[in-house]
Amino acid sequence: MISFAHRSAFLDAVTHLPGASEHAIRAARARQAELTKPAGSLGRLEEIAVFMAGWQDNPRPQLGCVRAAIFAGNHGVAARGVSAFPAEVTAQMVANFETGGAAINVLAQCASAELTVVPLDLDCPTGDISRDPAMSEAECLDALNAGAAVVAPDTQLLLVGEMGIGNTTPAAALCAAAFGGTGAQWCGTGTGVDGAGLVRKIDAVEQALALHLPHCCDPFETLRRLGGREIAAMAGAMLAARLQRVPVLLDGFIACAAIAPIAAQHPQFTRHCLAAHCSAEAAHQLLLDCLGLEPLLRLDMRLGEGSGAALAVPLVRAAMATHDRMATFAEAAVARAQ
Amino acid sequence: MISFAHRSAFLDAVTHLPGASEHAIRAARARQAELTKPAGSLGRLEEIAVFMAGWQDNPRPQLGCVRAAIFAGNHGVAARGVSAFPAEVTAQMVANFETGGAAINVLAQCASAELTVVPLDLDCPTGDISRDPAMSEAECLDALNAGAAVVAPDTQLLLVGEMGIGNTTPAAALCAAAFGGTGAQWCGTGTGVDGAGLVRKIDAVEQALALHLPHCCDPFETLRRLGGREIAAMAGAMLAARLQRVPVLLDGFIACAAIAPIAAQHPQFTRHCLAAHCSAEAAHQLLLDCLGLEPLLRLDMRLGEGSGAALAVPLVRAAMATHDRMATFAEAAVARAQ
Repeated sequence: MISFAHRSAFLDAVTHLPGASEHAIRAARARQAELTKPAGSLGRLEEIAVFMAGWQDNPRPQLGCVRAAIFAGNHGVAARGVSAFPAEVTAQMVANFETGGAAINVLAQCASAELTVVPLDLDCPTGDISRDPAMSEAECLDALNAGAAVVAPDTQLLLVGEMGIGNTTPAAALCAAAFGGTGAQWCGTGTGVDGAGLVRKIDAVEQALALHLPHCCDPFETLRRLGGREIAAMAGAMLAARLQRVPVLLDGFIACAAIAPIAAQHPQFTRHCLAAHCSAEAAHQLLLDCLGLEPLLRLDMRLGEGSGAALAVPLVRAAMATHDRMATFAEAAVARAQ
Repeated sequence: MISFAHRSAFLDAVTHLPGASEHAIRAARARQAELTKPAGSLGRLEEIAVFMAGWQDNPRPQLGCVRAAIFAGNHGVAARGVSAFPAEVTAQMVANFETGGAAINVLAQCASAELTVVPLDLDCPTGDISRDPAMSEAECLDALNAGAAVVAPDTQLLLVGEMGIGNTTPAAALCAAAFGGTGAQWCGTGTGVDGAGLVRKIDAVEQALALHLPHCCDPFETLRRLGGREIAAMAGAMLAARLQRVPVLLDGFIACAAIAPIAAQHPQFTRHCLAAHCSAEAAHQLLLDCLGLEPLLRLDMRLGEGSGAALAVPLVRAAMATHDRMATFAEAAVARAQ
């Protein structure tokens, strides 16, 4: 089980990222060229199959356990009226996850993904980032390790999602710290906050940036000061996945913001990630551009919970199934292009 | 079983199209507003659930049989060198479908769709549309009825696909006849024809339009003169679906071109259709704009066979599953937006 004992262990990990197998990638590309279809005609499915081959180091990759981990946390900054929903909804929705009534329960079933729900100290919101760091060093490490702990060795594809009333506010702050830009550029209406709420949100992000940016010297410190427990947990899970060469389906704006501090310093971090869905939250497209990722889906969703990632699982399954099970031109005695 | 005895029966059907249930649509929208998520946050999944409710006349629609029907035909115009592949490949690929080695076999399995393959007189190519009508009236009716016959009464969602070397050429001609524009605007590289082949293809379409357009007085005549057997069969299947209020997942450029002559005269024809995928074939985006449809997927595919439609089935299943199985705010005791 991967765990980070100190901030230096985390920082060491992000500078020593394993890569995919070039040999398996070449062999998977060669197989694609033999399958009974015009060259390239399966488009992004072909890319996905080759991507999975590389991370599994197997020219004919197979998909066993797909794990969806949903992290929940509460945010001091929620008290500033940055969300359309009251903070109690975080715990209420965790109860809903646990009894199976939320969107992600249904979508994980549809995707045949194993769902793990990890509430993180919901009774103890993080510091209000507009006035204080979100977390102490120990709290941030605990959250990173809670995330890393979900990536059991049998995991072959990881989805991470989140629930946390107010969490588009720290997500916007993380994006601005990682990639520059103003609070207004990175803030949107989230789950549906009104105009006055959006102004409060932008104010909170600008105050947070003014206070913390001079101290954001590395990805750990940025996550600790501007993030939140569920956000750090997502970062920990996605880093633990990379260290074990497990590919990740990235969910929406907040899941992508969780890795922004790492990816801004180490752009190759996103190589084990597929962007599942571009959210209706306006800044998500901007963030995907910064991360160099093209989403598989654009369904105008803005729910979080890993919902966008779950919807992309059937595309990964279809990509791997066609790669593995289609006949070759030789096997089917089909003529090639003239 | 729906069947068209004469061209007049077909033309009568396209002018008497049944609609969806407004009552079920209203009830489904009301249910969406009660589910434990911010209003509208499931984006296009919400639209799909409401769409299925309307066509099933059921506020909580269920999905039984998903039927994928693949029609194959050969084209006289293929002899003019408009494709990258030799015409024998149509029959070779039908054999591949029958032994389970093609992309659509794998994708239909992934989608839990029942696959039906219907080869249509492969030994007898249609007339070369650049010089003759593609089909006689009897041949066109036979093809329409072969299509209509696949929509068995248990069908709850229909996918149609095609295989026919050279068939982007008649598809381009149908689009130009239906919506205007030149051969060059509607012709692309199909499965990968080279520059000289593309010039031959545009020439063939322009000659076909010059010859037949003055006679294309109704959708039947347009299909008969400029279409092909598999294209008319797809049109017949999608019309038979509408007459039985069965929704359709539209596949790529050729499947959409098959309904272009009907939709150009009767724009409400597409109301029972969801556009599954926008193809890499350049004219498909233009055609979807003409049909007033926004695709669910853009995966850079250009294979045909119903492959794009099959990939969208899990999105329909996910939309219906969330609609049916999520808890309401009251059931889960979750607070609403403030």
